[in-house]
Amino acid sequence: MLRPQFVLFGDSLTQKSFDEGGWAGRLANEYQRKVDVINRGYSGYNTRWAKYIAPVIFPASQKMPPQLVTVFFGANDAALPDRLSARQHVPVEEYRSNLQSMIQLVQSKGSKNILLITPPPLHEAARVRHNQQENDEVSEATSIPERTNSVTSQYAAAAKQLAGDLGLPVLDLWTEIQKHKSWQSDYLEDGLHFTPAGNKAVFNLLLATLRESFPHLRAENLPDDFPSHRDIDEDDPGKAFISYA
Amino acid sequence: MLRPQFVLFGDSLTQKSFDEGGWAGRLANEYQRKVDVINRGYSGYNTRWAKYIAPVIFPASQKMPPQLVTVFFGANDAALPDRLSARQHVPVEEYRSNLQSMIQLVQSKGSKNILLITPPPLHEAARVRHNQQENDEVSEATSIPERTNSVTSQYAAAAKQLAGDLGLPVLDLWTEIQKHKSWQSDYLEDGLHFTPAGNKAVFNLLLATLRESFPHLRAENLPDDFPSHRDIDEDDPGKAFISYA
Repeated sequence: MLRPQFVLFGDSLTQKSFDEGGWAGRLANEYQRKVDVINRGYSGYNTRWAKYIAPVIFPASQKMPPQLVTVFFGANDAALPDRLSARQHVPVEEYRSNLQSMIQLVQSKGSKNILLITPPPLHEAARVRHNQQENDEVSEATSIPERTNSVTSQYAAAAKQLAGDLGLPVLDLWTEIQKHKSWQSDYLEDGLHFTPAGNKAVFNLLLATLRESFPHLRAENLPDDFPSHRDIDEDDPGKAFISYA
Repeated sequence: MLRPQFVLFGDSLTQKSFDEGGWAGRLANEYQRKVDVINRGYSGYNTRWAKYIAPVIFPASQKMPPQLVTVFFGANDAALPDRLSARQHVPVEEYRSNLQSMIQLVQSKGSKNILLITPPPLHEAARVRHNQQENDEVSEATSIPERTNSVTSQYAAAAKQLAGDLGLPVLDLWTEIQKHKSWQSDYLEDGLHFTPAGNKAVFNLLLATLRESFPHLRAENLPDDFPSHRDIDEDDPGKAFISYA
């Protein structure tokens, strides 16, 4: 018996999501005995680079394609083309088209439940502080942020619109996170990546979206992968396992 | 390309290990981009029941058998045969022989790296409190613990001896956890399951054992599953991915 998989495809916001209190760990915990949560996050990747690896991550020959795929890119594509992280920049039109082709690839491999996640908002002052620390210098390059919240909003809007066009659910993290009053300091640790509180908020938003968009994938609607120990007859334990033999 | 798997096979101490700060989540985080940590923990299961599911969890036809398997049972086998959890009791000789046959099964399916983990110590007073709360009564049955630390120690010793006989590494949690002064309150939440601090201690002990027993499986000795974003030529990104096509 194969356990269903949820595959989390994205950049560092996905790769780091098994960190303490991270949103992937919380999801795995929510789906104990029911689903394997598989992390396919790639730090620093934009959609242009992710397109090369998507066909390897979602191969043609899968006995059981992932039950759910989250597609969570944009934070790197939105790096400004003339600043510190210029090499990661992808124009917003290409971002949209890359997302679309990756989604179509995932669908063509048999996964029906796909959730698009927009990039989260960006806190520019914290990025400047982070870049000056990382590069160990205060210079022209590190005194201005390499990403801005307003440019990131264009990528979030593009992802949201694409989801609408394709009839897919979307978690608009850019908007939802900014509903929290002190999102800058409470939810982001370096202006971009999630704090423990941010991870918890992302998980709660994700779970609410999953429950609404894919009711059949709610944890209570998925079977445990073997009988509960309470249903095993201690005098004749084999009975409980006959259907798995 | 398939990512290697570490499979965690055990009872509730494994099933709950993706809980906040849990040892499975910490392990998954340690092995970002390198290993999928697969949780096969089954609450309430003893080795007698686990033997039925082991052949399904470790099937014959695997393209790539798990790189590492942790086998972590005994907490339920050690339930006393005449108390509240009698139905979970398995005599210590049978526990040893069940463990041995499951280990041989896992080995026969091609997994070379197997780590036995002994049951952790048990705090009897906390079990009594827990059982009285769970059963909502103070009675003869709930006034004495359903497991004792001294009986659990026999199961830990049996696991340790079996590991020695089979030439396998073992993490002796029963002994290691009791080296911490206030292990009862610091590490166990109900006399049996781990607190966040207990989970952290288990992870640190596990990681130290893995690093010593399986140096080739240290995170720094395993490749990332795709190039670092820093090694992608932004003017010719395809180059970095040629070997994966």
